[in-house]
Amino acid sequence: MSKRIAGPEIERLIQLLAKVPGLGPRSARRAALHLIKKKDQLLAPLTAAMGEALDKVRVCSTCGNVDTSDPCTICSDPRRDPATLIVVEDVSDLWALERAAAMNVRYHVLGGTLSPLDGIGPDQLNIRTLVDRVAAGEVKEVILAVNATVEGQTTAHYLTDQLSDLDVKVTRLAHGVPVGGELDYLDEGTLTAALKSRTAF
Amino acid sequence: MSKRIAGPEIERLIQLLAKVPGLGPRSARRAALHLIKKKDQLLAPLTAAMGEALDKVRVCSTCGNVDTSDPCTICSDPRRDPATLIVVEDVSDLWALERAAAMNVRYHVLGGTLSPLDGIGPDQLNIRTLVDRVAAGEVKEVILAVNATVEGQTTAHYLTDQLSDLDVKVTRLAHGVPVGGELDYLDEGTLTAALKSRTAF
Repeated sequence: MSKRIAGPEIERLIQLLAKVPGLGPRSARRAALHLIKKKDQLLAPLTAAMGEALDKVRVCSTCGNVDTSDPCTICSDPRRDPATLIVVEDVSDLWALERAAAMNVRYHVLGGTLSPLDGIGPDQLNIRTLVDRVAAGEVKEVILAVNATVEGQTTAHYLTDQLSDLDVKVTRLAHGVPVGGELDYLDEGTLTAALKSRTAF
Repeated sequence: MSKRIAGPEIERLIQLLAKVPGLGPRSARRAALHLIKKKDQLLAPLTAAMGEALDKVRVCSTCGNVDTSDPCTICSDPRRDPATLIVVEDVSDLWALERAAAMNVRYHVLGGTLSPLDGIGPDQLNIRTLVDRVAAGEVKEVILAVNATVEGQTTAHYLTDQLSDLDVKVTRLAHGVPVGGELDYLDEGTLTAALKSRTAF
């Protein structure tokens, strides 16, 4: 805003809200105003929830997930099959797989992908802890659920190599047509992969 | 999420973030994760800023604006012309007009529009304070900058009526073609108004 129309506290709130993904400078103003108007119903409980997250959230020392306990809820859940480990790049991938609720297993969060140009080598990712976890013997299968990008696939190859000496099956997610997807809109790589991995009807 | 994958604090944070305008359930998850990851750079300062807003923000008893001081920054700014008052429905309208920075004047925030069906009569809006402000004598012109909706126009007529006994000029925003707007996309009402109020070139 060109001239001061409100106290610096409100300007600062807007500036910080604009950094939240999903909000831009314009929607941050709208969000700030909404929060201020709904002081008791939204601003107060949200501030409290954020303060609690700030206090309690930590990274799980076993799998790299974020949670309010360490080991995290997933690592400490005795009903999860300890023989299968899904390796993901990021916590958001873990959450996505949990929403699909396809498998009742544990995870390992790498914290990114190998990217030498950005200075991200094996030591910057949670790879050592993964090898140690697998070497401990309980894990029988490691599913590499990394993104189907160049960096993701490079990382997958590196991990396969690191795990090759251990008694563990290494698998990866299937490539194919997304459920609900239209062939017309798919790229050639996906279509070729879907044809190659065709299954009996 | 179908089963517990994180502590209740994170779930609660996501639920509350989803109530912020501009964020939905999906982007709230992304926002929560981003906040948790950028604990020191974003979560901590944003929590502090929200706490401060919670503490300090109040409604200006003169004009109905929200600010960290009462009277607000605008009402207490001696460089603003006290002879003109712009009446708006909401604080967001005040902010929009200030961004345009077209006039260095003061405001009066109604807090809504007359809407008998929703139980909003004159007593639910800041109308009494407006009449009192104008009756005090310093204000020479009241610009009704209410929305061009049925409720907005009804409210404008009511206000004109209330102010008719006072020695004040009541004006309203011009109707016309938005700057940068294409005629092809404009409704008939706007075009008719723009033709009627045509000006010399």
